[in-house]
Amino acid sequence: MDPDALAKAFVEHYYRTFDTNRAGLGNLYQEGSMLTFEGAKTQGAQAIVAKLTSLPFQQCQHHISTVDCQPSGPVGGMLVFVSGSLQLAGEQHSLKFSQE
Amino acid sequence: MDPDALAKAFVEHYYRTFDTNRAGLGNLYQEGSMLTFEGAKTQGAQAIVAKLTSLPFQQCQHHISTVDCQPSGPVGGMLVFVSGSLQLAGEQHSLKFSQE
Repeated sequence: MDPDALAKAFVEHYYRTFDTNRAGLGNLYQEGSMLTFEGAKTQGAQAIVAKLTSLPFQQCQHHISTVDCQPSGPVGGMLVFVSGSLQLAGEQHSLKFSQE
Repeated sequence: MDPDALAKAFVEHYYRTFDTNRAGLGNLYQEGSMLTFEGAKTQGAQAIVAKLTSLPFQQCQHHISTVDCQPSGPVGGMLVFVSGSLQLAGEQHSLKFSQE
């Protein structure tokens, strides 16, 4: 599987999980993982899931605009950059977002 | 120097160099570095500088809105996420940008 297709599949899986079963995102993080959300840092899979499930909106739908991936660092790994929009239930306008 | 201050200093240096001496950005990339610019991938310091200096605008000014940094990968390193706007000479409206 080429890296771009892998990145795209991961991104689709990540945001589908975010929109349908946010608690399930824990499987996609490790103990060393860090999430920075609007400037606030959270480390570790369990803490990240607690942060994501406590966000002040319930139903949401992500629409992906771009997925870019490239090699990251000397020991393998991949950096994926995503941009798109986020529609919250009951809100007329969507929010732009980007995540790496 | 704490990581956030280091990231902020690096980001200010990077965009000041971009706006005043784009060819000088070569010192900030390595041979293994990759730039993805609007979906196009370029690898290596020399090729990246060639790409950046050939962009279809000359004078520009970046305005930084946010700088977030966090540890990256198992062997050290840092991931820095930047958002802001880009004003091109002669253009009335600025462009939103984000870079990691």
